[in-house]
Amino acid sequence: MALIVQKFGGTSVADTKRIRNVATRVLKTHAKGNDVVVILSAMAGVTDRLIGLAGEVTETPDRRELDVLLATGEQTTAALLAMMLKSMGHKAQSLLGHQAEVVTDCEYGNARILEIGTNRIKRLLAEQNIVVVAGFQGTDIQGNITTLGRGGSDTSAVAIAAALKADVCEIYTDVDGIYTADPNICPRARKIKEISYDEMLNMASLGAKVLQIRSVGFAKKYNIPVHVRSSFSEEEGTMVVQEDSVMEQLVVSGVTHDLNQARITLKKVPDQPGIAAKIFSPIAEAGILVDMIIQNTRAAGQTDLTFTVPKADYKRAMEMQQRLAETIGTEEVFGDPHIAKVSVIGVGMKNHSGVASLMFNALARENINIIMISTSEIRISCIIEEKYTELAVRVLHTAFGLDRED
Amino acid sequence: MALIVQKFGGTSVADTKRIRNVATRVLKTHAKGNDVVVILSAMAGVTDRLIGLAGEVTETPDRRELDVLLATGEQTTAALLAMMLKSMGHKAQSLLGHQAEVVTDCEYGNARILEIGTNRIKRLLAEQNIVVVAGFQGTDIQGNITTLGRGGSDTSAVAIAAALKADVCEIYTDVDGIYTADPNICPRARKIKEISYDEMLNMASLGAKVLQIRSVGFAKKYNIPVHVRSSFSEEEGTMVVQEDSVMEQLVVSGVTHDLNQARITLKKVPDQPGIAAKIFSPIAEAGILVDMIIQNTRAAGQTDLTFTVPKADYKRAMEMQQRLAETIGTEEVFGDPHIAKVSVIGVGMKNHSGVASLMFNALARENINIIMISTSEIRISCIIEEKYTELAVRVLHTAFGLDRED
Repeated sequence: MALIVQKFGGTSVADTKRIRNVATRVLKTHAKGNDVVVILSAMAGVTDRLIGLAGEVTETPDRRELDVLLATGEQTTAALLAMMLKSMGHKAQSLLGHQAEVVTDCEYGNARILEIGTNRIKRLLAEQNIVVVAGFQGTDIQGNITTLGRGGSDTSAVAIAAALKADVCEIYTDVDGIYTADPNICPRARKIKEISYDEMLNMASLGAKVLQIRSVGFAKKYNIPVHVRSSFSEEEGTMVVQEDSVMEQLVVSGVTHDLNQARITLKKVPDQPGIAAKIFSPIAEAGILVDMIIQNTRAAGQTDLTFTVPKADYKRAMEMQQRLAETIGTEEVFGDPHIAKVSVIGVGMKNHSGVASLMFNALARENINIIMISTSEIRISCIIEEKYTELAVRVLHTAFGLDRED
Repeated sequence: MALIVQKFGGTSVADTKRIRNVATRVLKTHAKGNDVVVILSAMAGVTDRLIGLAGEVTETPDRRELDVLLATGEQTTAALLAMMLKSMGHKAQSLLGHQAEVVTDCEYGNARILEIGTNRIKRLLAEQNIVVVAGFQGTDIQGNITTLGRGGSDTSAVAIAAALKADVCEIYTDVDGIYTADPNICPRARKIKEISYDEMLNMASLGAKVLQIRSVGFAKKYNIPVHVRSSFSEEEGTMVVQEDSVMEQLVVSGVTHDLNQARITLKKVPDQPGIAAKIFSPIAEAGILVDMIIQNTRAAGQTDLTFTVPKADYKRAMEMQQRLAETIGTEEVFGDPHIAKVSVIGVGMKNHSGVASLMFNALARENINIIMISTSEIRISCIIEEKYTELAVRVLHTAFGLDRED
């Protein structure tokens, strides 16, 4: 008998028929003698519909009130599932964020969990209830509703699993696990059986988009095994676990790509102390997330500076730098929104030399030009021209021995 | 400068355009230097849509979870209005039932307000906020969400007005006040300027349907003037006030009718102690509300008993009595769903004799047969054949001098 946290995403609870499937799956786990806590997202599309409603009110909805509005999505599914479980003859109870004592800071729209009081959940479990918690939402210490940001239900699930010291946190979604690459562009991609938290952290941030990245951080911190699997099949998915629990350690575990990048280059920037702050402070204040930054010393007193921003912020960031150019003394500002980032990820590369050169060689053989490079302990990323994305992912997948054998 | 509670019903917040109108109206009151607390219903149709969703899950949704589900309706409109007010440059904040400390018993779906903690509302008002409270919902002492039953937002509004000792509670709705009769069937009906709580209590229960009856009881208990008015015009509506504040006291203030009645007659019931209990206990247990009961002694040891039930429960109640007939010894059970109740209401009748005979004579002149009669201190009701309803209302309206002069 174990304590199992199960989280179901928006497509898994898209209508009452699918909520019935969720109930069946939950009951199956419960029937084996496990304690079950279920975390739900809003029905697919509902959060966007609510954001649209707020958009009818104002272009810049107040963040506190937007959270009050958005929280109704998960409240609805939690009530419906608890109702379903009870109608099937089982003890169940829904809990909203504040009832489950998910206490967060007051950063509306992107709140961070500070602590979770588990008394109420534990009492309900002790009374044989299946506990259904509305994901994505919490409460600040003043009792205001907060939400955890896009994909926040994953974080709710892992944080509640951590607080309860659950045996596993199962994330049910519309894909059946984590793949070595996006199967849509890399037909030989394989499902990964086990992957470490650190690899997953790099996967998620690079566009694998299966798990909210913050939830992986939580899972790592509290060492909660996370099982990513499909709510539409019985098949085992991918276990995200501690590095030393991963059985089969490859040098590279996966190849990811990210098309949501644009590049901005500032040519001949005066190389003076404080210049970087002048360039990046306005961007940070505008809430634009800079990913990669590369600086090449050009000649005495001058430097070239290149950085990447999300595609959606490209125009804004370009205009900002063009306005700044004169005061800073930049000779020229140019950019390119048609780029992609391809990365190879693997904890194995810590103990293997030559991963970078293998990557560069594989790309070179296909005449793919590398525009920028960045590396971390377990990841190497290259910015390339967008049109080569699929080709690059496939050749790297083959080069690192990840292709499925069939 | 006054403290004004304004409640807007479902049609007044049916979409974001109408919520904008509500915001404009609220700001107008606020601009005059008043403190304003706004209570909102769900968008028109939303509560029914949510009940439909629950109906897809099970025919008998768990009441606790149904309340969690239904509460999302008012949460949505409260967030949207607060958002709207803020986008228009004003300080505002939404509060849900538990945040506004609307503490109720735990009778899910039909909870009663036990107390309201006003600290948070008062603090927000002191900080110049317009406070927007989600109507219809509360919390029990365990922190579970409860709802107050159909029309419960009226009760929320009046109870909050009472707790805050507000100067007036304005109920904005889609009609412009209380009329002396239903204008749809009585063209000469007039809008009533002032009406007493007791008259309104009788009006509401008899089908005027403008105010939830419990809200009127609350208003009376705490002596809160209630102003029923249209959210679509600037015109003054009807003030519901203490009896001794009503300026123009007529003998009869209004004529109401109720088509939601069905009659059941038990012929030749043995006249023994405990018989009434045997007849009515099963009906009460089935949750059927009996309105009028009349018993005529027929002959030694036998009696005829007639009572009315809501039309929707007629078939069920008939079957129940037919099953009971043998054990009880009833000779015959028959009924009629095609009846109506017409009533005249007025605190003035306490001090005037002859109201009943004037009513009976007016109906008799039109050959309208009276099937049952019941009276209270300020009301006389007659059950008649359904087809005479409109005619009866009109002749009574004229007979008691209520017709508009034009």
